[in-house]
Amino acid sequence: MEKREALYSGKAKSVYRTDDPDRFVLLFRDDTSAFDGEKKEQLARKGMVNNRFNAFIMEKLEAAGIPTHFEKVLSPVESLVKKLDMFPVECVVRNYAAGSLCRRLGVEEGQALQPPTFELFLKNDELHDPMINESLAETFGWAGADDLAQMKALTYKVNEVLKKLFDDAGMLLVDYKLEFGRFNGQIVLGDEFSPDGCRIWDKETRKKMDKDRFRQGLGEVIEAYEEVGRRLGIQFD
Amino acid sequence: MEKREALYSGKAKSVYRTDDPDRFVLLFRDDTSAFDGEKKEQLARKGMVNNRFNAFIMEKLEAAGIPTHFEKVLSPVESLVKKLDMFPVECVVRNYAAGSLCRRLGVEEGQALQPPTFELFLKNDELHDPMINESLAETFGWAGADDLAQMKALTYKVNEVLKKLFDDAGMLLVDYKLEFGRFNGQIVLGDEFSPDGCRIWDKETRKKMDKDRFRQGLGEVIEAYEEVGRRLGIQFD
Ligand SMILES: Nc1ncnc2c1ncn2[C@@H]1O[C@H](COP(=O)(O)OP(=O)(O)O)[C@@H](O)[C@H]1O
Ligand SMILES: Nc1ncnc2c1ncn2[C@@H]1O[C@H](COP(=O)(O)OP(=O)(O)O)[C@@H](O)[C@H]1O
Ligand SMILES: [Mg+2]
Ligand SMILES: [Mg+2]
Repeated sequence: MEKREALYSGKAKSVYRTDDPDRFVLLFRDDTSAFDGEKKEQLARKGMVNNRFNAFIMEKLEAAGIPTHFEKVLSPVESLVKKLDMFPVECVVRNYAAGSLCRRLGVEEGQALQPPTFELFLKNDELHDPMINESLAETFGWAGADDLAQMKALTYKVNEVLKKLFDDAGMLLVDYKLEFGRFNGQIVLGDEFSPDGCRIWDKETRKKMDKDRFRQGLGEVIEAYEEVGRRLGIQFD
Repeated sequence: MEKREALYSGKAKSVYRTDDPDRFVLLFRDDTSAFDGEKKEQLARKGMVNNRFNAFIMEKLEAAGIPTHFEKVLSPVESLVKKLDMFPVECVVRNYAAGSLCRRLGVEEGQALQPPTFELFLKNDELHDPMINESLAETFGWAGADDLAQMKALTYKVNEVLKKLFDDAGMLLVDYKLEFGRFNGQIVLGDEFSPDGCRIWDKETRKKMDKDRFRQGLGEVIEAYEEVGRRLGIQFD
C-alpha cells in the first residue's frame, strides 16, 4: 500500500489517496478546533492519541457487528480506512444533557436522558452545523430515508457497546457524534471516534475528560484524553 | 353556552372557560406579534378577520376528515372550541423555502421543496421556539412517539386539502404551523389556521399575503389577509 497525494485537509485530519482506489489514509493532526473552527490550537500528541484511541474503539465496534471503515494503523498518526462516500450529516446520541442541548432547550447539564436522544445535524461549518431532521435530509438530498434509518439504528447500537465499555472503566459516555458513508452500497461508520467528538465524564466526580476541556479552557486536555485511554486499556507511544 | 372567566391570554388570542367543562371560547384579538413577542402592534380588524378565516379553514378540514377543535363562531371575534390538552409542540410543513429555513440552511427563498418538509418546534417563546425532533419530544415528555406520528400524518393531510384550496384561488400555500391537543384520547387539531401562522404568496407575482408583511414592515397587512379570504370566498363583516 502506497500513500499518494492529499485529497482533503479538514479541521483535525488529512485524507490521502492510496494506490488502492478503495482505500484512504487518514492522518490525525495535532490541530484542535472548536466553535466551528473559530478557536484553534495545536495540542502536542493529540494526533497520536486520537489515532490510537480511534483504532481501539473501531475494533471494538467492528467486533460487535457494526461495519466500520477502519482497516489498520499504519503509523503513530495514520490509519488505513475504506474510502467512503460520506453523507454530510452528523448523528448524535446523548445519554446525559450537555453542550448545545442545554443552551437550546434550557435543560440542566448532567440530566440523564431516558431514552437516550438522537439528533441529526448538517455538516456545514459556515452554517454552524444546523440541526436538521430526516425530512429535511431527504428533501435536500443529503441522505435517503432508508440510509437515515440505518444510521440511526447503528448510532444507537454503538451506544449499547460503548456505554458499557466506558462504564466498566469508571466513566460516563455523555454523548457522541458519528459520521457515516456508503461503501459498495453498505452504510459504514466513518470518520473517527475519539474524545474530540464525544463527551466523557468520570463516573464519580463527573470531571470532564473530553474536548470540553479545550472548549472551556480547563487545561490538561491531552492528559485527560490519555487518562481515558489508559482506563480503557489503550497503549499510547 | 355561557362564557366564564379568562384562563389564559396568549400573544394573539384569549381563552375563556365556559359552563361546559369540555368547551372553551377562543377570542381573537387585534394584537399582532412577531419574533417571539419582541415586535408587537395592534392591527385593526385582525381579530375578526382571523376568526372568520379560521372558521372557514377548520370547516374545510373537518369536512376532509381531519378532527378539529372548532365548534362554531359565536361573535365576530369569538369561536367555541373543544377544550384540548395541548402538546407544547408546533408542527410545520413547507412547500417552498422561506423564513427561518432559509437562514438556518442557507437556502434561497422560494425554492420548491419536494417532498414537502416536516419539522417540529418546541412552543417556548423564552427559548425562541427551538427546533426539536421526535426523539427529544419523547425523552422530555412533550409528546409520545404515537402522538407525534399521528400529528405528522394529520399535518401532511392538511397540506393535501389546503394546497389545492389555495391553488384553485390563485395562491401558493408556502408553509404553515399547526398545534394539536388531545380530546377524549383523540389527537385533534387546535389553535388556529390563519395568515398569522402560515405563508401565502400570490401564484403569479409571489406577493406576500401573510404575517411576513408585518414581520418585514411591508404594510397593508390586514388588507392582504382580507384579500386572501376574499379569493377563498370568505365573507368578512
Ligand atoms: N472513510 C472515509 N472516506 C472518505 N472520507 C472520510 C472518511 N472518514 C472521514 N472522512 C471525511 O474526512 C474528513 C476528516 O477530516 P476532519 O478534520 O474531521 O474534517 P472536517 O473539518 O470536515 O470535520 C471529514 O470531512 C470526514 O467526513
Ligand atoms: N382547543 C384548545 N384548547 C386548549 N388550548 C388551546 C386550544 N386551542 C388553542 N389553545 C391554546 O391557547 C393559546 C392561544 O392563544 P395564542 O395567542 O395563540 O397563544 P400563544 O402566545 O401561547 O401562542 C395557545 O397557547 C394555544 O396552544
Ligand atoms: Mg471532523
Ligand atoms: Mg399562538
